[in-house]
This record gives sequence, C-alpha cells and structure tokens, in this order.
Amino acid sequence: MIKKLAITGGTHGNEYTGVYLVKKWKLKPELITRSNFETICLHTNEQAIKEVRRYIDHDLNRSFGSVDLKNETLETHEAKLAKHLNAHLGPKGSEETNVDFIVDLHTTTANMGLSIVVSNDSVLTWKAIAYLCQVEPLLRVYRWQGDEEGSFVDSMSPHGFAIEVGAVPQGVLRADLFLQTEALIYHLLDFFEKYNNSETFTFSNRLEIYDHEILVDYPRDKEGDITAMVHQERQDKDFLALKTGDPLFLTLSGDVFRYEGETLYALFINEAAYYEKGFAMCLARKKYITIET
Amino acid sequence: MIKKLAITGGTHGNEYTGVYLVKKWKLKPELITRSNFETICLHTNEQAIKEVRRYIDHDLNRSFGSVDLKNETLETHEAKLAKHLNAHLGPKGSEETNVDFIVDLHTTTANMGLSIVVSNDSVLTWKAIAYLCQVEPLLRVYRWQGDEEGSFVDSMSPHGFAIEVGAVPQGVLRADLFLQTEALIYHLLDFFEKYNNSETFTFSNRLEIYDHEILVDYPRDKEGDITAMVHQERQDKDFLALKTGDPLFLTLSGDVFRYEGETLYALFINEAAYYEKGFAMCLARKKYITIET
Repeated sequence: MIKKLAITGGTHGNEYTGVYLVKKWKLKPELITRSNFETICLHTNEQAIKEVRRYIDHDLNRSFGSVDLKNETLETHEAKLAKHLNAHLGPKGSEETNVDFIVDLHTTTANMGLSIVVSNDSVLTWKAIAYLCQVEPLLRVYRWQGDEEGSFVDSMSPHGFAIEVGAVPQGVLRADLFLQTEALIYHLLDFFEKYNNSETFTFSNRLEIYDHEILVDYPRDKEGDITAMVHQERQDKDFLALKTGDPLFLTLSGDVFRYEGETLYALFINEAAYYEKGFAMCLARKKYITIET
Repeated sequence: MIKKLAITGGTHGNEYTGVYLVKKWKLKPELITRSNFETICLHTNEQAIKEVRRYIDHDLNRSFGSVDLKNETLETHEAKLAKHLNAHLGPKGSEETNVDFIVDLHTTTANMGLSIVVSNDSVLTWKAIAYLCQVEPLLRVYRWQGDEEGSFVDSMSPHGFAIEVGAVPQGVLRADLFLQTEALIYHLLDFFEKYNNSETFTFSNRLEIYDHEILVDYPRDKEGDITAMVHQERQDKDFLALKTGDPLFLTLSGDVFRYEGETLYALFINEAAYYEKGFAMCLARKKYITIET
C-alpha cells in the first residue's frame, strides 16, 4: 500500500512542463485524486521559477545527498531548500517518510522524447515503470545514479523517479510534451490505485532499459571553454546506437572527432544545462532486465 | 563603397551561435578578411555571455533608441554598454559612422530556420539581402521595426540587419545552424567585396518578404501569468499561413483558442525570450517588394 504520493515540478525553474502541470493541478486537484491514496503536488523551487532560472545558487536536483542534508554549515538557497523539502517529503532514509513515492517532473533540451530517469532499485518503483512502459510504448527508461550520486529530489522517498521530456528549450512550454507528461502521470496514479486494490497486473516482466555507463565531455581549451560542438549527425539521436567511427564532435575549426569504443547508446545529447557540468552526452548500455511482478 | 563592416555576436549572452562564431573568427580572422574593406567581429555583451543569460539588467537589443542613447541618467549595465558600443561602432545617425554595416547574430527557440530580421530601409541593405536570398534560397526575410521601435544593435550603423536562426534552445550550440549562419556571413562578405569592385549583380529585383503586422500575446491571468500554450498544431509552423479557425492556443484546462482574422503568417512562435515581453508570436503579411538593383 502507498498512502501518499508527491508530484514535484519546478525543481529546475526554467523547465516549464512541470511548473505548469503543477499550476494546473493546484487549480484542479480532482485530476490527480484517486480513491485509495493521497496525492500532493508542489513547486520545489519557487524562487528559481520566478527568475526563470535552473537554480539560484546551485542545482537543487543535486542537493539531496545524505551528507549534504546533514551538513548544517551549508547556507545556499538550494541547500536550505533541500533541508526544508526533506523535512516535508522525507526524511530521506527514514523508516517512516511523509511521502511514499516522488515523481519529479523535468524537461530537457535533448531529444529524449518521453523518458524516465530512475536511480531507485525498489521493487515497487520498477513495477510502476513496467506498468507505464506497457501502457505507453514510446516511454524509455534510463537507469542513472546521476553525476552526483544519490542526490536527486526523488531520493527523499523510498520509491520514485524523474520524468524527462524533450526536446524543449528552457523557459518554453510545448503543448505536445505537456500533454504527454500529463497523460503519463494519470497512468502512474491509476497504477497505484490498482496496486493498492491488490489488482493483478499482467505486464511483461522483461523490460528494456538504458543503463548508465559513462559521461562524455566536450573538447575544451585550457580555460575550460568548449572548442567543439556535438556533430550535426549525432544531434537529436538520443537513444540511438553510437558505433566506433561515428562522428561525435565538430570543432570550431571544422575538424571531426569520431567515437572510438564499443557500441553504446547516447542520451541527453547537447543538453543546455550540462555544458557547465562538463558533459556533452551520457553513454548507456541497452539491456533487458527482469522485473518482479 | 563600404569601408568597414562589423559582425556582432553575444548581444544576447545565451545565444551561442553568434558567441562561438565570433570566438572562431577571433582565432582565424583570415576567414572574414576581404580585399577591399575591413571586417571586425566582437562580442557585444561579455558579461551576459559569461553568465549564459540573455542580459544582465535589460535587453541590449532594445537599448539603441536615440532617446536612450542620449539619456545620461540611465545607469543599467546595458544602457552603459549601449553608449560604449555606439561610440565604438556608431554614433547612430551621424554622417560619419565608424562602421558602415552591422550584421548582428542571433538565435531563436522558434523554428525560424535561417532568417533575416531587417528594420533598415537603405538601398544597400536591401541589395545585400536580395543577393543573399539568391545564393541561399532557404533564407527568409522578416521586416520588423521591433517591439521597441528603432532600438536594435544594427541601428547604430547606416546599413545592416540581424540574422536569426532556429530552432535552438538558449545556451546550446547546434552544429547545423552554426554552419548555416557561418556560410551566410561568408556570402555577405563576398557580396560587399563584389559591390566595392562595382561588379554587376544579376539577381531578381522582386523579393518575397514577411512584413510585420501585429504581436499576439498569450492568454494570461490577472497576475500576468500565461494560462495557455501555443497549440500543438501551431508549434514549429513559423512562416506558414495562419487562417481563420486555425487552433492558436491550448489552455491549461484543455480548451482551444482559435485564430479569427485575415490570413497572416506567424513568426517567432513560442520564442522563450518573448514570454516576458508579452507576446507568443508575431504576425506578418507576405509581400513581394521591388529592390533597386
């Protein structure tokens, strides 16, 4: 049984899909109400939303590491906010959290389509994912602990994941992706209603996922500025195979850098927010895993 | 004869195509060198580039109105910058400007393809545009004085325009659009080299343009926040006809607002930077004008 689920939006203040879905549901809570558990929805970073920025001082979605949450000396906007949210939705790692499941709404400038980023290995989390993949065949699953492991918003609760949709620029609301994300949330809530009713699920226990392997940075100069772009043949090719010899980067001078390595799958290709984090794309392995059903 | 041309990039610090083209040409000035005039290239808003923001205090590309340039009481970052740039590249409206032609490099989150935004009516400006349209058939021309008339960067010089390419998110470098913009600049420089050599041009004097008519804002609530998105059937349809009855907006509640009016063409649809300016798209009339050749 789950008792309480939280939908969080605006963790990055310039990712409008989540910001406006939460606004919608605040006005029409009946849309996210189900019969046998409570759903809450909230904006996690109001100040960043107001300023249409990813964050004020640093990335809120990298602020939930257990050590940081316990560190009383951190005085940044997002460090204080993380502690406040953790008291409200967590506390992370405790036996009795205030919320059982967190779904955190994101967008990306990369052509990720409709995807889930999951760092949780709970049986319930993966059961929910398997259900969603069955009702939404376009949905893709990226298993990733993050570039700063264990520090995502959804890590506050025992179960949960993030939804990433793209491509959409920062500070832009795209109706098509808004509607896709909205529909996925309703499916998720339906799943929990059935789950709480002990309904039997008939979905396949074999799930295709993309399992994180490595981060690839842009070529850079001594000052750290990029000296190349994602090659035009790689742009927008998220979730497609990257093979040895494929063009990867085009330098400002016009030279081509080619990929050398085993076949992997590129994700988050040319995401705006990752320039400063130091990666141009994530590489993942395509796998089939078995879900407990 | 033109003596000096300026290529400006980073007028909006998060529009990377211009930022990185200028970086490239600073390293390889021979690429923009022609035999019979001088070309300079520069970043107009270094601080905004550093912070990956459109501007620090307000939009630099709305800061070149003649009244503002003379107003000594304006103390914002961009007001001071505009005066500095005007002294260096202008002065605007004088008989002897330091630069004859300014081409200002922009990107947009709207699906504008490769386009020119022109507010100048000089014969030379339009001759250059007609040349470019001949060598690059995909190029489109939008004649617009701007939402704050006569205040664009390129208005400092007697001749000039802005290049807009998209769709590309803010803070992202897309190789395909980078290469298209670069090629267009080389064509522009070639034109002036031929022009200075008094070469005869054979291009058509009939030019298809999109002439600005009106700005259309999003539906908003009393606090000014948007209550609807660009409808999914209108998204990405820049430079295509908008007819009476076509879906224009989708409200957060799911209602459709339809366009009522004569057939016009929508441009800058869902541009991120225009949410705060108060418009969702520009509407223009398609026209054919005659160029002096």
